[in-house]
Amino acid sequence: MRKNVAEYRVIFSDIDSMGVVYYANYLSWFERGRTEFFREIDLPYTEIVKQGVMIPVSEVYCKYHKPARYDDVVQIETTVSSFKRVTIVFDCEIYRKSDRTLLISGYTKHAFLDLNGKIVKIPDFIHEKIKSLME
Amino acid sequence: MRKNVAEYRVIFSDIDSMGVVYYANYLSWFERGRTEFFREIDLPYTEIVKQGVMIPVSEVYCKYHKPARYDDVVQIETTVSSFKRVTIVFDCEIYRKSDRTLLISGYTKHAFLDLNGKIVKIPDFIHEKIKSLME
Amino acid sequence: MRKNVAEYRVIFSDIDSMGVVYYANYLSWFERGRTEFFREIDLPYTEIVKQGVMIPVSEVYCKYHKPARYDDVVQIETTVSSFKRVTIVFDCEIYRKSDRTLLISGYTKHAFLDLNGKIVKIPDFIHEKIKSLME
Amino acid sequence: MRKNVAEYRVIFSDIDSMGVVYYANYLSWFERGRTEFFREIDLPYTEIVKQGVMIPVSEVYCKYHKPARYDDVVQIETTVSSFKRVTIVFDCEIYRKSDRTLLISGYTKHAFLDLNGKIVKIPDFIHEKIKSLME
Repeated sequence: MRKNVAEYRVIFSDIDSMGVVYYANYLSWFERGRTEFFREIDLPYTEIVKQGVMIPVSEVYCKYHKPARYDDVVQIETTVSSFKRVTIVFDCEIYRKSDRTLLISGYTKHAFLDLNGKIVKIPDFIHEKIKSLME
Repeated sequence: MRKNVAEYRVIFSDIDSMGVVYYANYLSWFERGRTEFFREIDLPYTEIVKQGVMIPVSEVYCKYHKPARYDDVVQIETTVSSFKRVTIVFDCEIYRKSDRTLLISGYTKHAFLDLNGKIVKIPDFIHEKIKSLME
Repeated sequence: MRKNVAEYRVIFSDIDSMGVVYYANYLSWFERGRTEFFREIDLPYTEIVKQGVMIPVSEVYCKYHKPARYDDVVQIETTVSSFKRVTIVFDCEIYRKSDRTLLISGYTKHAFLDLNGKIVKIPDFIHEKIKSLME
Repeated sequence: MRKNVAEYRVIFSDIDSMGVVYYANYLSWFERGRTEFFREIDLPYTEIVKQGVMIPVSEVYCKYHKPARYDDVVQIETTVSSFKRVTIVFDCEIYRKSDRTLLISGYTKHAFLDLNGKIVKIPDFIHEKIKSLME
């Protein structure tokens, strides 16, 4: 399965008073990873929304192995671990770039909604694309 | 002039690695103060938007006297310092509640926009209300 | 088991472009709930740190039932679901106050560390307190 | 005067319910700009702290010309506009990269502190470096 690798450098606003990245902030890095994943397969999220589809998060799980610190460059690695009729799951692992230490692992599960917020089947143009990546 | 006083308790996610509130976060406290100001004068912001008006920030100035720290209870004091045909200015002071030390002072300047983003004159229902507060 | 209920009103800075609270922000509400839980049982987190103990998050799970929106008042309900020799788990449910709709449910798992970051057994002064709550 | 240009792509967590970047978030972009400025002149902030110096923000001013939107790539342009015995001022302008529209302009004023939080004269190793940039 194709994996997207996005890089990010930690700034002060990411850090909490224990000198490490605040635990909620990794979720916005998960988002950054998903965004780059979609862009890399030519489905930028802005286009998906134009097609009348939203893909909000319905569940998240996150395991904190080691913390990221100020000025670390991290690699956010995102892949699709499963997709079904109405849901898709992204796995995400975050590594410190300098020594490839695994910092964070987790997943987000998503539903497909139309712009009225009703659950819909995974749209064909997304389904085809993701399926071709998994072959 | 009427002054709204809103209270807030600092949590970890507000704090940076120097053990004090991250400098950008005070701006969301300014917002909290403005929201409570409008609510107190029976103009909740949700109602203002329903009337077709938005009041985005066009300028902000903030002076950092002393930092707020984890678990501090702060008092966010908000007042209108001036309003003109198309702009309004809120002054905001933030105090540590326990000893009334001034931590932050500043202001935000706002324009009035319609829902298409076009600048409009201050709506009558807001103008009347604010004016009556200043008498 | 004792349950802490903390209230919070949603502001703009919590909201994303779909008009709902950004998914990562609920995790800072979980933190707010835990903080109030500890305060209510006379173990404010600042005291715990003074005793040389940190309780960082090692895992988080969060299920998004319905979104919170601007100006909603939410109730953050926090309880301890399990505690062992070196870990403690907090369950958290977030309700919209106006109609008691369940918005979010999840948990955070924590380790006990000394100030050098070494895993330690749950300190007696915490263990006694939590145990007495569960009886 | 040397100007640092840092790039950043807007993600959902930066955006508020009006579909634009939340006004406080630009301040963390100012910070990103300052960090890259220091890195480019071989004074990474981590090194400065190791030398026993902190450079917290004492004032900020920000003017919002036009908003940044989801997925925009912005250019954060940072320069030193003045430095005195105990203070330094950074000017920052943020442009949308695609058409070089000016979105935000502002400045941050900073004090030099030792690690006990006492104001100190600008350290020689910083003074020399900045001065050479201005010649």
